[in-house]
Amino acid sequence: MKVVIAPDSFKGSLTALEAALAIEKGVKKAMPDVETVLVPAADGGEGTMDSLVAATNGRKVDVIVKGPLGEEVKAAYGILGHQETCVIEMASASGLCLISSEQRNPMAATTFGTGELIKQALDDGCRKFILAIGGSATNDGGAGMLQALGMRLLDSSGTEIGFGGGELSRLVEIDDQHFDPRIADAQFLIATDVQNPLIGANGATYVFGPQKGATAEMLEILDANLQHWADLVEDKTGIRLHDKPGAGAAGGIGGAFQAFFPAITKRGIDIVIDYTKLAEKLTGAVCVFTGEGQIDFQTASGKTPMGVAEEAKKHGIPVFVLSGSIGKGIETLYEHGIHSVHSIVNAPMTLQEAIERAAELLEQCSEQVMRTYLAP
Amino acid sequence: MKVVIAPDSFKGSLTALEAALAIEKGVKKAMPDVETVLVPAADGGEGTMDSLVAATNGRKVDVIVKGPLGEEVKAAYGILGHQETCVIEMASASGLCLISSEQRNPMAATTFGTGELIKQALDDGCRKFILAIGGSATNDGGAGMLQALGMRLLDSSGTEIGFGGGELSRLVEIDDQHFDPRIADAQFLIATDVQNPLIGANGATYVFGPQKGATAEMLEILDANLQHWADLVEDKTGIRLHDKPGAGAAGGIGGAFQAFFPAITKRGIDIVIDYTKLAEKLTGAVCVFTGEGQIDFQTASGKTPMGVAEEAKKHGIPVFVLSGSIGKGIETLYEHGIHSVHSIVNAPMTLQEAIERAAELLEQCSEQVMRTYLAP
Repeated sequence: MKVVIAPDSFKGSLTALEAALAIEKGVKKAMPDVETVLVPAADGGEGTMDSLVAATNGRKVDVIVKGPLGEEVKAAYGILGHQETCVIEMASASGLCLISSEQRNPMAATTFGTGELIKQALDDGCRKFILAIGGSATNDGGAGMLQALGMRLLDSSGTEIGFGGGELSRLVEIDDQHFDPRIADAQFLIATDVQNPLIGANGATYVFGPQKGATAEMLEILDANLQHWADLVEDKTGIRLHDKPGAGAAGGIGGAFQAFFPAITKRGIDIVIDYTKLAEKLTGAVCVFTGEGQIDFQTASGKTPMGVAEEAKKHGIPVFVLSGSIGKGIETLYEHGIHSVHSIVNAPMTLQEAIERAAELLEQCSEQVMRTYLAP
Repeated sequence: MKVVIAPDSFKGSLTALEAALAIEKGVKKAMPDVETVLVPAADGGEGTMDSLVAATNGRKVDVIVKGPLGEEVKAAYGILGHQETCVIEMASASGLCLISSEQRNPMAATTFGTGELIKQALDDGCRKFILAIGGSATNDGGAGMLQALGMRLLDSSGTEIGFGGGELSRLVEIDDQHFDPRIADAQFLIATDVQNPLIGANGATYVFGPQKGATAEMLEILDANLQHWADLVEDKTGIRLHDKPGAGAAGGIGGAFQAFFPAITKRGIDIVIDYTKLAEKLTGAVCVFTGEGQIDFQTASGKTPMGVAEEAKKHGIPVFVLSGSIGKGIETLYEHGIHSVHSIVNAPMTLQEAIERAAELLEQCSEQVMRTYLAP
């Protein structure tokens, strides 16, 4: 009997691999001779690089880059096992996770470090890229990334503008003479679920700015600056990012990829399912365990358990979801192939206790769910 | 498809019937056309009367009696559906649940009210009794109950002694001249799991006295008084309660039944299983849901989920246990026929929240467990 174990991370407590190992322990307690296939998964957010690197026996390369506020940070990219594809989590160089909540400032935060990661990977010979662009601290339209790759963003005196969404108002010319020519020969696969346009009420700034620390006043400035940026990009490339779906992803870096890169966009979970060869691994499995820290109706919009379930559904294999917290609306998940949802919390307890005991609780819950499934 | 639903109460939140109804709702959400058989159960503790009355379509009779501290309380006994058996929960007349924790005082607490319940039922024509003797506030050896039934307990001046374990030292004569003669013609089935002797380190006082409010000083007095009581009972009846297993149940009332009543003792859960005709109801069922507020290794010692599981095991039917809190050592339950154990808590939360939301949580958990069981 074969069981596929494909959880996302349990944020704040377990990586996807740790979660998979805990589930495996529980499943094996219920059935010692079961065959388990571990597929630590991700949905384009945190853990995507680890998931793909693990699934392909790849490796990670550390790179020192400029963080969101210009400070040095140790970021990394992954080289997948077949050596030709590079996977980059934008958050590793330009993420909210790198700064404290007091430091959040989308007026100043830059995507420069993400550009540095791409440059280093190009230097290392990579020409295929997967860019997971969740969790950014930035609202600079991807300007910083372009700068790191040789694009000169000049003010009225012909000087380079500074970093961050606040600087874009000073831009008068986009000079692509020195823009890294290797970009044109490369392939970029952008992992994002975000379909928002660059500007306006549904744009990058107004939808995602507040969680990056933008005040009401900043929101106005940042949106106007992205409008100005989009105008100049249109002048330069003929590509109109203003209303383009996905241009508003990750503070507008989505638009930069659309305008200046040979890029296509896919849902993060679909890329992970593809690269981890989940479909292949499902062959012959009797059931699938997946999970994530929190489950609710939002899980249906491209989160890992849903993506895993949709794939398993094609094969007619039931999917059990384990989670630290079950929220509202889980009944909407059934149509996507999720068979049942179980909380790992085994008694009244604080969030802190649940986080600390997550591995043990996940193991116990997995064992019990497997025992129930195996019941005659 | 038939499912049997036989939970105990979830103490502090749901009666056994309420729990059964919540589970039924969840199971029916997972499978709308399922046939459900509800068997609200109990293990001889709180809820035993309700369980048996409900299972037999019986009725309850309210009786005003003396509570543990002599105050008037509204107690009740149950008449089972076939009209000849009376079920009495001792706690309803003489229970800890009737007084505040500050009032606990086994020196003074009496079983008199329990005797009054028996007397009233005898007056009403009952001759078969089931006595569930858990949860008592008393340590009087059953003296109060005997007094209520006409036994005269006299001091050295020939006057009746007062109530409570503290008074027994004054006893010099047990006069059974006026002891209700109907007792001898009746049958008493005592529901208890307690095997403790009347006196000594493993006796009624030292083991159960502290939870009834006995201080270290009281424990010494109460144990010595029960010793004196046992000596006099032996003189009177030839029955030696001192070391007799079960004589120490419920502050020694177990011994009073052994010495003065035509009584046999059975585990509470076995009586409930018997009277609710669980075996019969299990015929044709595909699975059983049971549960209780807390589950741990202690569940194996005669608690409802374990009794239900042992019965289901004989029929080869899997049993799923739902609980508010899963403690240590649940793996010891598997050999008793329990297939799996699931906590109804669906996220980190306080005990208070779990108690308030118990019905909703139980319903959700039941649905998910049923969905998992039904998965292909």
